[in-house]
Amino acid sequence: MNAPLKNDTLLRALARKPTDYTPIWLMRQAGRYLPEYLATRKRAGSFLALAKSPALATEVTLQPLDRYPLDAAILFSDILTVPDAMGLGLYFTEGEGPRFERPTDTEERIRALAVPDPEIELRYVMDGVREIRKALARRVPLIGFSGSPFTLACYMVEGGGSSDFRKIKTLLYQRPDLAHHLLAINAKAVAAYLNAQIAAGAQAVMLFDTWGGMLAHDEYQTFSLNYIRTVILGLTRHSADGKVPVVVFTKGGGQWLETIAASGCDAVGLDWTTDLASARARVGDRVALQGNLDPAVLFTNPQTVQQQAGKVLSAFGRGPGHVFNLGHGIQPTTPPDNVHALIEFVRSESRKFH
Amino acid sequence: MNAPLKNDTLLRALARKPTDYTPIWLMRQAGRYLPEYLATRKRAGSFLALAKSPALATEVTLQPLDRYPLDAAILFSDILTVPDAMGLGLYFTEGEGPRFERPTDTEERIRALAVPDPEIELRYVMDGVREIRKALARRVPLIGFSGSPFTLACYMVEGGGSSDFRKIKTLLYQRPDLAHHLLAINAKAVAAYLNAQIAAGAQAVMLFDTWGGMLAHDEYQTFSLNYIRTVILGLTRHSADGKVPVVVFTKGGGQWLETIAASGCDAVGLDWTTDLASARARVGDRVALQGNLDPAVLFTNPQTVQQQAGKVLSAFGRGPGHVFNLGHGIQPTTPPDNVHALIEFVRSESRKFH
Repeated sequence: MNAPLKNDTLLRALARKPTDYTPIWLMRQAGRYLPEYLATRKRAGSFLALAKSPALATEVTLQPLDRYPLDAAILFSDILTVPDAMGLGLYFTEGEGPRFERPTDTEERIRALAVPDPEIELRYVMDGVREIRKALARRVPLIGFSGSPFTLACYMVEGGGSSDFRKIKTLLYQRPDLAHHLLAINAKAVAAYLNAQIAAGAQAVMLFDTWGGMLAHDEYQTFSLNYIRTVILGLTRHSADGKVPVVVFTKGGGQWLETIAASGCDAVGLDWTTDLASARARVGDRVALQGNLDPAVLFTNPQTVQQQAGKVLSAFGRGPGHVFNLGHGIQPTTPPDNVHALIEFVRSESRKFH
Repeated sequence: MNAPLKNDTLLRALARKPTDYTPIWLMRQAGRYLPEYLATRKRAGSFLALAKSPALATEVTLQPLDRYPLDAAILFSDILTVPDAMGLGLYFTEGEGPRFERPTDTEERIRALAVPDPEIELRYVMDGVREIRKALARRVPLIGFSGSPFTLACYMVEGGGSSDFRKIKTLLYQRPDLAHHLLAINAKAVAAYLNAQIAAGAQAVMLFDTWGGMLAHDEYQTFSLNYIRTVILGLTRHSADGKVPVVVFTKGGGQWLETIAASGCDAVGLDWTTDLASARARVGDRVALQGNLDPAVLFTNPQTVQQQAGKVLSAFGRGPGHVFNLGHGIQPTTPPDNVHALIEFVRSESRKFH
């Protein structure tokens, strides 16, 4: 593990150190828009079988890197592995997304939750991390990840996706004591999970706070960001490749950028609604910024993709501290050729800004 | 029409004039959470039959006022009446929401669009406004409304609701010329529609920009806010009751508050993600603010509702210029008793702030 990374551009950018160009990776870069992914998933039989097989997770994690000159790999997994390991029974239904057989929807069930041991209940993820690291052969760094404590709590309490977040919001407005109990357990579980990923070989980690942006301003600070801060404080942030940077991404969190930047993270992920130029002015040199092309731009054509990507590069401007990404996960119907045009463009055009 | 309004608190607050208390009305205050609404809708046969009957629209518009001491009535109608009047053929499917028989999804169809005459193609809406005004007998002002040009365009181009906004975003990224053509027609149609509502008796108007918040920052300014500004410039803003105030509500638009406040509107509607105290500091005395209780608070109990409503009142603080509302439409499963607790509380507690 001690040979240097062949491409450490991502880690340098996250540390706001000079780089030759702006590194790029894409949220959900491995997945349904790639024919080779669909083939592997078909072989696996189901999404969950794929995610739970270290060999197949390794295969799909590397697929986009074989196709495009990306600057990072990200562990292929699901954000709900932790509650699944807590015994909630994750399953997927056609068209309805993730569901839990045993939602955490009563006080008794919340009180009964325990922090799983990642090397036991989540062993398949750690085996995946180890196998991916081996397969990567130090080409680029591997990013590990987890859902944020609040985002996990949303799914755990609702029993799946939700349009009104009735159960989780009722819990936090009406029984904040119980919500805090649940979130404290989730924070411990997420920290242990990410520490195990780091020990297994993850060189950077990211917290996906998919639903934090559905909260009111005060509730976001109290019930989501506070526990993100707890997770970050609990992380062992060193690997054989140096400090392990932490990226926090709250979808819809642009209004709260300053407080997210003060959470202890190294970088903040931004969706496409936030202007990178003003975001940079707001955070100064406290954190790096990751983002933020509208994933819908990838529905168009290579020329439009490059024009819009150029606007993102210009908005951030000169100097280090920018990791190019989409403002949200890549959409399943994205044409792979547009992804190629994007990555080639960012690799070459961004040199002007460094 | 020249007798004074019995309760003009809303109009005074929107003009940032002193009031005895903070006025309150609720987005979707007439609708599916009320048993009397469900009974009328059953009689009507369908949502569209209800919305297209001036007599039944009047009945449901007044229902929440008979139940609660609200400070405004809002026209019961659909946001998609304008594209329906353009010939797109609005219909509703169970569980999938509004759809159009003939979406505006080709250049030919966009070029063929024409501005409808509100007193002809939308006569049922104007008859509804006149009948509601008569039935209200000057108890409280009547708010008219329309979808924003961009929000209408989303539905027109997608043919209904969308999760990825692929078609509309492809149009505006790839064919901005055509998008501008469509939006300019929508802006003319919306201005004519609101002017007809004002002529028929609406004493305030609101633009619902439901989907503007899905746009990237630059695209929001270019494709949504620009056309909201055009609509406002085109409005005849006087009625027998004085100036007709305009409220602009972009869901998810908190980051763009300053530019929305500079659109020519009198008030900005805010969703629950924006802190009213900082919003007020950002806009100064340029506009009134409307909002912004999380509608999910109404899922809890009267005590929690009042506690959270108290936080909204305190966040805005002392003085005029606040219209209490939810941060989005009331949810269908809301218990009416919680709505009652909210309205009574705001009416009495807000006196402290005036």
